[in-house]
Amino acid sequence: MRWGQVEDLMSKKIDVAALKPVIGTMYPPPYDEPCLARSRTKLGDAAGLTQFGVNYLRLPPGAWSSQRHWQTASDEFVYILAGEVTLVTDRGAEVLQAGDCAGFKAGDPDGHCLQNHSTADAVILEVGTRVAGDAAHYSDADMFAPPGGKPAMYIRKDGTPYTDLKRRARS
Amino acid sequence: MRWGQVEDLMSKKIDVAALKPVIGTMYPPPYDEPCLARSRTKLGDAAGLTQFGVNYLRLPPGAWSSQRHWQTASDEFVYILAGEVTLVTDRGAEVLQAGDCAGFKAGDPDGHCLQNHSTADAVILEVGTRVAGDAAHYSDADMFAPPGGKPAMYIRKDGTPYTDLKRRARS
Repeated sequence: MRWGQVEDLMSKKIDVAALKPVIGTMYPPPYDEPCLARSRTKLGDAAGLTQFGVNYLRLPPGAWSSQRHWQTASDEFVYILAGEVTLVTDRGAEVLQAGDCAGFKAGDPDGHCLQNHSTADAVILEVGTRVAGDAAHYSDADMFAPPGGKPAMYIRKDGTPYTDLKRRARS
Repeated sequence: MRWGQVEDLMSKKIDVAALKPVIGTMYPPPYDEPCLARSRTKLGDAAGLTQFGVNYLRLPPGAWSSQRHWQTASDEFVYILAGEVTLVTDRGAEVLQAGDCAGFKAGDPDGHCLQNHSTADAVILEVGTRVAGDAAHYSDADMFAPPGGKPAMYIRKDGTPYTDLKRRARS
């Protein structure tokens, strides 16, 4: 037991600095490319929350939050904490700056993603419900994330599964 | 139709400045007192989200986010955007500053609230799932929020309903 641990046990504050970010993506190539440097720290999980996820998402210059997608069953929300991102949807591209926010209703087939076209890191708080049977459609990629990850986490639009799915990252 | 409306229709960005904050509380006296000046702007609702709420919560000096409480069915999460608040739970009091966050698991009977003991406004992003049948227990008040708001939004711990429930605010 190290010094400080008692204090930690007394705290409800999430010790963000102690959490290990998840870098990169499980997307198959070539769709992994813009997401290789994205970094997600799972804040909600750290507090034992299960109904929704809350991530602290850091996008270095050039990085995207995801391929453009929409969820069939889960609401999503993003709040820009620092920097500047470009939100891309069917409506086009618009810049979101610190203090800006947007929401994406489950089942709305207007795919979205955040792209960092600036020269500085962007930091986003992202929230998404965890609904059983959720799936993700990808607007600009030959990719679909089926419910329960079966037969694979990502399959092609013709139904054939991608193989060699693994985390790919660039630091 | 005013100029700018077409642009608004093209935007997924939530027009936060156009949203009307909800000031004050429905708590019966004397429990309303520390919450009369709190201000909530409902960001998630503005985007049509239904599975969880996301509020932009502003607490002037002296204001509390709520009476100390815990939800039976809904997870909650808070992220401090600006200023400083004191998080009060069974574990005691601890200060949260901008960038700090905490989560409260549904059913954990450790009541919580945020109190602004500073001399400046505090701003918090708060997230909570909307689960049917949710209820709220109040740790330090003779108050209970029963499922579905029946027989009243707030009742005493002996089951008798509060009357004259209405929004009370101080600007």
